[in-house]
Amino acid sequence: MKIINWQESGADTKNKILARGTWNDKKDVTSTVANIITRVRAEGDPALLYYTKTYDGVDLNSIVVNCKNIKTTIKEAIDYAYKRIRRFHELQIPQTINCNFGGVEAWKSWFPIDSVGLYVPGGTAPLVSTLLMLAIPAKMAGCNNIVCVTPPDRNGTINPAILYAAQLCDIEQVYSIGGAQAIAALAYGTQTVPKVDKIFGPGNKYVTEAKLQVSKDPFGAALDMPAGPSEVLVIATENVNPQLIAADLLAQAEHDEDAVVICITTSNQLATKINTAVKEQLKSLKRKDIINKSLEHSYIIIAKDLYEAFEISNTYAPEHLILNIEDAENYIKLIRNAGSVFLGQWSAEALGDYASGPSHVLPTYGYAKNYGGLGVENFMKAITFQKVSKEGLLELAPTVEVLANFEGLDAHQMSVSIRRLLLEGDV
Amino acid sequence: MKIINWQESGADTKNKILARGTWNDKKDVTSTVANIITRVRAEGDPALLYYTKTYDGVDLNSIVVNCKNIKTTIKEAIDYAYKRIRRFHELQIPQTINCNFGGVEAWKSWFPIDSVGLYVPGGTAPLVSTLLMLAIPAKMAGCNNIVCVTPPDRNGTINPAILYAAQLCDIEQVYSIGGAQAIAALAYGTQTVPKVDKIFGPGNKYVTEAKLQVSKDPFGAALDMPAGPSEVLVIATENVNPQLIAADLLAQAEHDEDAVVICITTSNQLATKINTAVKEQLKSLKRKDIINKSLEHSYIIIAKDLYEAFEISNTYAPEHLILNIEDAENYIKLIRNAGSVFLGQWSAEALGDYASGPSHVLPTYGYAKNYGGLGVENFMKAITFQKVSKEGLLELAPTVEVLANFEGLDAHQMSVSIRRLLLEGDV
Repeated sequence: MKIINWQESGADTKNKILARGTWNDKKDVTSTVANIITRVRAEGDPALLYYTKTYDGVDLNSIVVNCKNIKTTIKEAIDYAYKRIRRFHELQIPQTINCNFGGVEAWKSWFPIDSVGLYVPGGTAPLVSTLLMLAIPAKMAGCNNIVCVTPPDRNGTINPAILYAAQLCDIEQVYSIGGAQAIAALAYGTQTVPKVDKIFGPGNKYVTEAKLQVSKDPFGAALDMPAGPSEVLVIATENVNPQLIAADLLAQAEHDEDAVVICITTSNQLATKINTAVKEQLKSLKRKDIINKSLEHSYIIIAKDLYEAFEISNTYAPEHLILNIEDAENYIKLIRNAGSVFLGQWSAEALGDYASGPSHVLPTYGYAKNYGGLGVENFMKAITFQKVSKEGLLELAPTVEVLANFEGLDAHQMSVSIRRLLLEGDV
Repeated sequence: MKIINWQESGADTKNKILARGTWNDKKDVTSTVANIITRVRAEGDPALLYYTKTYDGVDLNSIVVNCKNIKTTIKEAIDYAYKRIRRFHELQIPQTINCNFGGVEAWKSWFPIDSVGLYVPGGTAPLVSTLLMLAIPAKMAGCNNIVCVTPPDRNGTINPAILYAAQLCDIEQVYSIGGAQAIAALAYGTQTVPKVDKIFGPGNKYVTEAKLQVSKDPFGAALDMPAGPSEVLVIATENVNPQLIAADLLAQAEHDEDAVVICITTSNQLATKINTAVKEQLKSLKRKDIINKSLEHSYIIIAKDLYEAFEISNTYAPEHLILNIEDAENYIKLIRNAGSVFLGQWSAEALGDYASGPSHVLPTYGYAKNYGGLGVENFMKAITFQKVSKEGLLELAPTVEVLANFEGLDAHQMSVSIRRLLLEGDV
């Protein structure tokens, strides 16, 4: 990894690091995805089978997957993760708020989004953890219709661990489709796949672009959050174990060649030790080639003090923020932007990826400035209610009539005055 | 208004009504907006002055507006509305949830979005109510930097009522710019306008398209919700006052030629009476021409019973839903999709537009299926935290090692096993 001193770096270097890589280069992705969506909308299932053959290299007869009576060798691990994740999510159901005042009963209640789509990536590995992270909040929210899509492997099958997790979460609809075609199917429906209102889950550039395109169409489907490559930022002080930091950096780097890994420390010495540990640990890892590519655009930054470190971190707004600092809780007040925060040396980020409870579906690419990680509330929407009494109408009427008149909306004004006059007995 | 019987209508008619108008026709809007954004990004303030001259017809020297010591004739009405809206919004600040279990302290806390932009439309009327509906939740959320933009009138000024409301809400930055250029300025910043993280507020097609375009760019700004023309759906039973329903329909129709107005009733007689009342009341209204255009694509629907009425409404997912039904509360359980609900005959929708408390910034165009109205939580984002103890690491390690290994992520596995081995004293 490159080690740089923040104080001694020019604006160009700083901006380059803060802006991440050049992942956003995707002109051909836009038109490829638009074509896929058009064809899936026009043809439905036959287009899904065609694209599955083209992109997944497998000739399916049907995309419907059975997920009843599934057995998997990793049942125990899935069961345990399920329990822990569920425990954190069941606390998240938003409460109704009530405000009764001056003749108005007003309240705000949360309702499930009726129909949701869950995208579980396949690719190099079947992401059973992602299925749990999407299905559990959908169930907690009470969504009526939960549709899961995931690409088939080269044999046309879905890994039983995925299907077991679906069964555990009581998801009845699983379809073996992936890529932009799966997003198009969820957004518009086909003969087989039901249309959904909102689509959740991470994916590659094509999936991400497809989610953006269908979300722009009022007759498509909303998306959970925009996505970029996964990333971690570690803030570390002098006296911590460089081996643990190196392991966390490598865990992040193995996700993807585009994954971004940043470590900020106040200690030159620690920086050197981390760099050595990274090189050493890397030797035994299977995904070495991916990691090497990812480390090319990753940095160890020397900050002048912890305040500067947190300022850099807040500007960066990392998906994962690890505070490998003694008494890390004392520094929470310096955090303004992050997806999920890991405190202290035992809080390995990988624990959060699988089983500690909070979601691993988190805002990347700086979106942590304005989005949080996935929560139960993202599978719901708030509806406000108001019931105005006669007294309330008479109380509010003078204000509303003045404001409506000021805004030049005399029909608004009349809709209130007609009621006021009725109550005043003048009509 | 056209009266149609739902049971006797064909699928084409039903779909046409449910799909709203053909508002989404905007090919030239896309490229016009893209050009404006490009120029504002390149030039900054000079481009803002240029577009203000071009589109608002006024030659400004500066877009900076003073909002200190402002006086307005409608002070009392603004003060009262402010109090009521604030009272409903201060209850909405989301609480931290805590989950301490099995060696993990995990929690989810809400943080303000640092920097937000508020778009207050000008046009035919200065929307002082919209300023309140945007600024109050932004302040409740604790946003650090609140930037308000609103287009100048032909004299180059901003109505003092808008500025008084800004002052009341303690908003210090107001700029006299509107349209796509204002959105571009907020998303990217200029010499004068600070860059923001998220942009809120309604606007015309250009504003809406600009919000969508900048939200697709990771270096732009997020948006509150997609927008379409305003709309109301009234469900009414036989024995209610047709004059009140007519007044509510007209209040909605006067917003915009594209505004959509639907009334569903089980009574043929009431339908006829409403239609007559609409024609009668319309005569005295200033915005007659706008209303007539809006009523061209508006309907009174005869449903066979209230269950069918609510089914139509849920499929439509109206921005405003008025239940002009006796004991309207009893029917809340039939609601799945709506922006804001008004119960009973005294709950004029216009009260909610100005002063009863809940937000008037609501999802239109069917987006109520997956978005709620604007709330304090939309000016915040959740951050999850976790602190894992030594015991927690040992408790979670077996599960996480199995799952990481299954997903083929051996660096993830190692980041946990290296800690486990340390604790087990094997390293």
